[in-house]
Amino acid sequence: MKNTTSLFSKICILSLSICFSSVALSKTDSLPSWNDGKTKSSIINFVEKTTTEGSPNFVEAKDRIATFDQDGTLWVEHPMYTQFLYVFDRIEQLAKEQPKMKEAEPFKTVLSKDPKKISKLTPEQLNIIAVTALTGMDLEAYNKEVSEWLKKAKDPRWDKHYTELTYQPMVELLNYLRDNGYKTFIVTGGGQNFVRVYSNDVYGIPPEQVMGSSFMTKYSYTKAGKPILLIEPSLLINDDFGGKVRGIELLIGKKPIISVGNSTGDREMLEYTTSGNGLRLGMLVFHDDEVREYAYGPAQGLPDTEVGTFTQSLYDEAMAKNWIVISMKNDWKKIFSFEAQ
Amino acid sequence: MKNTTSLFSKICILSLSICFSSVALSKTDSLPSWNDGKTKSSIINFVEKTTTEGSPNFVEAKDRIATFDQDGTLWVEHPMYTQFLYVFDRIEQLAKEQPKMKEAEPFKTVLSKDPKKISKLTPEQLNIIAVTALTGMDLEAYNKEVSEWLKKAKDPRWDKHYTELTYQPMVELLNYLRDNGYKTFIVTGGGQNFVRVYSNDVYGIPPEQVMGSSFMTKYSYTKAGKPILLIEPSLLINDDFGGKVRGIELLIGKKPIISVGNSTGDREMLEYTTSGNGLRLGMLVFHDDEVREYAYGPAQGLPDTEVGTFTQSLYDEAMAKNWIVISMKNDWKKIFSFEAQ
Repeated sequence: MKNTTSLFSKICILSLSICFSSVALSKTDSLPSWNDGKTKSSIINFVEKTTTEGSPNFVEAKDRIATFDQDGTLWVEHPMYTQFLYVFDRIEQLAKEQPKMKEAEPFKTVLSKDPKKISKLTPEQLNIIAVTALTGMDLEAYNKEVSEWLKKAKDPRWDKHYTELTYQPMVELLNYLRDNGYKTFIVTGGGQNFVRVYSNDVYGIPPEQVMGSSFMTKYSYTKAGKPILLIEPSLLINDDFGGKVRGIELLIGKKPIISVGNSTGDREMLEYTTSGNGLRLGMLVFHDDEVREYAYGPAQGLPDTEVGTFTQSLYDEAMAKNWIVISMKNDWKKIFSFEAQ
Repeated sequence: MKNTTSLFSKICILSLSICFSSVALSKTDSLPSWNDGKTKSSIINFVEKTTTEGSPNFVEAKDRIATFDQDGTLWVEHPMYTQFLYVFDRIEQLAKEQPKMKEAEPFKTVLSKDPKKISKLTPEQLNIIAVTALTGMDLEAYNKEVSEWLKKAKDPRWDKHYTELTYQPMVELLNYLRDNGYKTFIVTGGGQNFVRVYSNDVYGIPPEQVMGSSFMTKYSYTKAGKPILLIEPSLLINDDFGGKVRGIELLIGKKPIISVGNSTGDREMLEYTTSGNGLRLGMLVFHDDEVREYAYGPAQGLPDTEVGTFTQSLYDEAMAKNWIVISMKNDWKKIFSFEAQ
């Protein structure tokens, strides 16, 4: 029996290989929402060089790791990170129970609902707001609440759910990389749990491939004795700047081959990735399309911002180190899937 | 062209399904090193129920998560956790440069090389020893050194490399679970980086599927400007007891379906896993085979130990909650791959 099975398996593997090779031969454009040009061809060249056996730049499948920032890289982050819009809604609820919050900063700014003021909140203030809104929640309840919130909440500019505001060219890039044996990870400065709620449905990235900022948690029990994890008021992981590299080490334990970001918070991740041996790819999404999305820098004379800052020095470093700066305006044919073709 | 490809793909998928079904029909024993009996049949029943479509206990492939402790569950941990044997060798080197260490505890005990004294070191003392041995190393250098050490160091009882002292029945179980669509993870109280060095070669578990205790690290640069992560003198993750549940949440973000451990440090992991909806499997390896390996508890009257303590209360809890206690003596036909058949 064993020999028959073995021969049969060999035939199966053989026909399977023929199937795959034939499908691969019938090439279609894997990145249809990208304009033809240097950026698109550089990506395709890189992937072909690193995945073609026999190529001097070939990377074994087990080492094909690609890490993506989320806010501003895979979906819209302006005028404010989506996660904080959820947190602000919780602050509004809390303020109904504790009216004194209405007079105290930074909550007063949140409750003012003035987009200009809100966009000037510093990372430290945002941290205080998140700690106040989330401490003591159990993670299961949190995940459920975020999931419900995402089904209801809409971005006022496009009148779309936030999960619809993902960049179509990046969704194509994720699929293209996976089709070529890359394992795709999200490494976000935002909350790990928040992104995990929708990452599989929206990006095809399962929860175990999402790193992010994360509160300390406490192992505890409900009154009925069910074990739960409660959110504590301090950060365990601040997954931004050098913290992104520590996050990659903790979640993946390997140096990525490709890293993609869009702001100064992604600088160290790109530096780390491109410091590896062999071919490496670092890319930064540059928001230079005021008409179809937003334009902010302050690099290249675009308006300054607290949300997704892209400084001139990061821009210059990218040029010097051959990191690709993706121009949303010039490199992307289409930004959102709901746009007319 | 598109339609041809599509039809061709369908034929491929169809032949592929036939291949897989036929292979599945020709059943062989996936767990040959397990004695026939209740433990083995319970494992097989569980896997069949959770992976057979249409079964009321069916679990979708994306949720098939199995977490394994390492020391004492997948490989030998007595008389001392292997990771610490490496750390002790580093302490010996350091003591040559700093002779004062020879008179100070807990280093004096380490340098005495007296197995009895060493086996009484407390977790706090072991932590001091690890911090002293590893602080300031860069992770890349650490990984390289561990890899070299594992090639040389041998266990004196069996005169084998430590990576040969893995339990053959558990290696079979890992393969069996993966063959049935389970994703296997290690969740160890030991060092995450240490285990990652060999986990793929030894267990078929890639680094990104290993959670463990982990020091804080600092993003820094070599003199030549290459980015590195330096080990800092405090733990970021203490992946033991309730910390294992926090570790699972951080690395995986899902409640496992199966958890396997061997000591009180695994209690919360099993409690958490088996608190989930639907069928769940909790198992504990019980070291009751003094002849072929070691016998320790103190459960069931076996000798007490600081290394892999299995208390009577854990044993009683396992019985009460239908967690399977795997008897090494009775359930395993063979313990190591190098044993004669």
